[in-house]
Amino acid sequence: VTMLGAPRASSSASAALAAAVLRGERAQLAKSITVIESKRRDHQVLGAGVLAHCLQDRRGRARIERSFRVGVSGPPGAGKSTLIETLGQAYLRDGVDSATMAQGEGDASRRRLSVLAVDPSSNRSGGSILGDKTRMPELARDPRAFIRPSPSRGTLGGVTRSTQDVIPLCEAAGFDFTMVETVGVGQSETAVEGMVDMFVLVVSPAAGDELQGVKKGVVELADLIVVNKADGDFVAAAQRTVSDYGRALHLTTPKNQFWTPTVVSCSAVTGDGIPALLDQFRAFRTVMDEEEAGSTRKQNRRAQQRVRYLRTMFADRVLDLLADSQHFSSEWAEKQEAVHRGDLSPVEACDQLLERVQFAP
Amino acid sequence: VTMLGAPRASSSASAALAAAVLRGERAQLAKSITVIESKRRDHQVLGAGVLAHCLQDRRGRARIERSFRVGVSGPPGAGKSTLIETLGQAYLRDGVDSATMAQGEGDASRRRLSVLAVDPSSNRSGGSILGDKTRMPELARDPRAFIRPSPSRGTLGGVTRSTQDVIPLCEAAGFDFTMVETVGVGQSETAVEGMVDMFVLVVSPAAGDELQGVKKGVVELADLIVVNKADGDFVAAAQRTVSDYGRALHLTTPKNQFWTPTVVSCSAVTGDGIPALLDQFRAFRTVMDEEEAGSTRKQNRRAQQRVRYLRTMFADRVLDLLADSQHFSSEWAEKQEAVHRGDLSPVEACDQLLERVQFAP
Repeated sequence: VTMLGAPRASSSASAALAAAVLRGERAQLAKSITVIESKRRDHQVLGAGVLAHCLQDRRGRARIERSFRVGVSGPPGAGKSTLIETLGQAYLRDGVDSATMAQGEGDASRRRLSVLAVDPSSNRSGGSILGDKTRMPELARDPRAFIRPSPSRGTLGGVTRSTQDVIPLCEAAGFDFTMVETVGVGQSETAVEGMVDMFVLVVSPAAGDELQGVKKGVVELADLIVVNKADGDFVAAAQRTVSDYGRALHLTTPKNQFWTPTVVSCSAVTGDGIPALLDQFRAFRTVMDEEEAGSTRKQNRRAQQRVRYLRTMFADRVLDLLADSQHFSSEWAEKQEAVHRGDLSPVEACDQLLERVQFAP
Repeated sequence: VTMLGAPRASSSASAALAAAVLRGERAQLAKSITVIESKRRDHQVLGAGVLAHCLQDRRGRARIERSFRVGVSGPPGAGKSTLIETLGQAYLRDGVDSATMAQGEGDASRRRLSVLAVDPSSNRSGGSILGDKTRMPELARDPRAFIRPSPSRGTLGGVTRSTQDVIPLCEAAGFDFTMVETVGVGQSETAVEGMVDMFVLVVSPAAGDELQGVKKGVVELADLIVVNKADGDFVAAAQRTVSDYGRALHLTTPKNQFWTPTVVSCSAVTGDGIPALLDQFRAFRTVMDEEEAGSTRKQNRRAQQRVRYLRTMFADRVLDLLADSQHFSSEWAEKQEAVHRGDLSPVEACDQLLERVQFAP
């Protein structure tokens, strides 16, 4: 019998790191993220320990509960980085307070912003989204912003998994507004939508009525669609694209009953439309702060996201462990090959594999 | 330590049942399906044994490899049952042979048809799709057709899982053409698309440019879109709907490089457009019979489907076992609640749960 359990992290090491994170020390936050993103099991355990300490800390917990998380997705070339740069500065200047927010919570001096990237496709798209911080030069210079390029680990699962844990860690460190950027490849948008409060789809003005390879499933995920680059020669095209996406949204089953997604245009370069965009953030946040069954919608949504994450992660990791296990990898490979050839039915292969799984009492 | 392995079925019982299935005995085929769909573990094991024997049988294997599987999906009221009734009769009369099929394979006297239903939503839609065989009166009377209403077990997973095993069983019994009907609720279409060679979306003529609640993701799955009920007063509306879906397809990323989905209209009642629809089936089947990397596209697609099914089923069943296990159900529930409340991070809960999973050597 092979035990697959994780070694317990040294509680003191993770407690020390968590304390530094809670004090807002950027270097220690960065280090904590690095261990969470590491492939080394002992690092991962240390990272999980840091997160656990932050959740157990009253102040850390309160910060996580107050925060606002926005996913920013869209096809390559939509100008996501520039938009995040502009939005981030506008946020630090004007905030995105919800109408129901308590007095003082929106204190401008406490505004902090983190930008994370989920980029499963940087190999394909020819460059990491955020590998180069110079794509957001103003924010990169601003001490109130924390920009974290994501390591490109190839698998969506790996990057996603860690990002989902990195968000609350940044929040515990005081970064109260998080933007998670992802390039659209279908799977990554769904993953990001499952870890944010609001999902924004960014597109550029299109020629004709093409939706530029944006999958319909992604349009359905959007709480807001932003047509960027509505400046200069593109103003008219942007307006047409707003109509096109408006129509696409109209044909779509609404994601929530309490919010009707809209399409807005803006220019990250000229700043046109940015205040209206922030107004949309505020309106959405206000709706998410409303109570529903004893908690706010945001709390309910996050609770569901966490449980879904647990279930997905558990299923993934059991499969990973099976594939990696010294004792099982060959059997797993054999069974898959037999099923691929058609010699063995999936149901029989599954039964045979499950016979080898046990639960310790 | 709790062993989760399945008891081995009596090999003689499953062999006897498999032999009867291979002889084409309908009652024994029905019985085999019943045990596969049963919730009882010993039944399921017997069913898996029958399927295993059929796969090991040279003739059974050859029949499975020759068959053609079509998924028929669409919103309630699109006339799927009537269309399947008409298509089924047209198939028995005219066949859907691929252009590359060997001589004699398309022998009209050997044509057999099975109709299966995946209906996770019969509670919601107010009635099982096929619970009432009188919805396909002609086929129900025809000895060359085998109609199998699906038990409505509530969960998509359960119904799907068994349907995926039922298809090859019907094929081993000589039913060489299978139509799998499902009502559209998003998840079920994806599941059905993952078990058929060709996925057909059926809609009715729409008033206006609404896509009648058909999710865009489902449009993307379609190899063919059929606007049914193109008769009487609806001919013009059907033509508009053909254009609407044509546009929707145009905006969609093609599923395969070797096949461009199209939209056709027909009337299951008058028979208009049915021959053209069968031509689409033949054209698609011909393309799927072409070689790609040493096997036919159909073989490759099915091999991938089987492996995906194994992985999904294994992950599902590990989670099910965890939730059901006497030793673990309370811990699993506790962990989920702690994660829901936010007291425990998903990553930590996952680690703690994985510690309890072991693989026998």
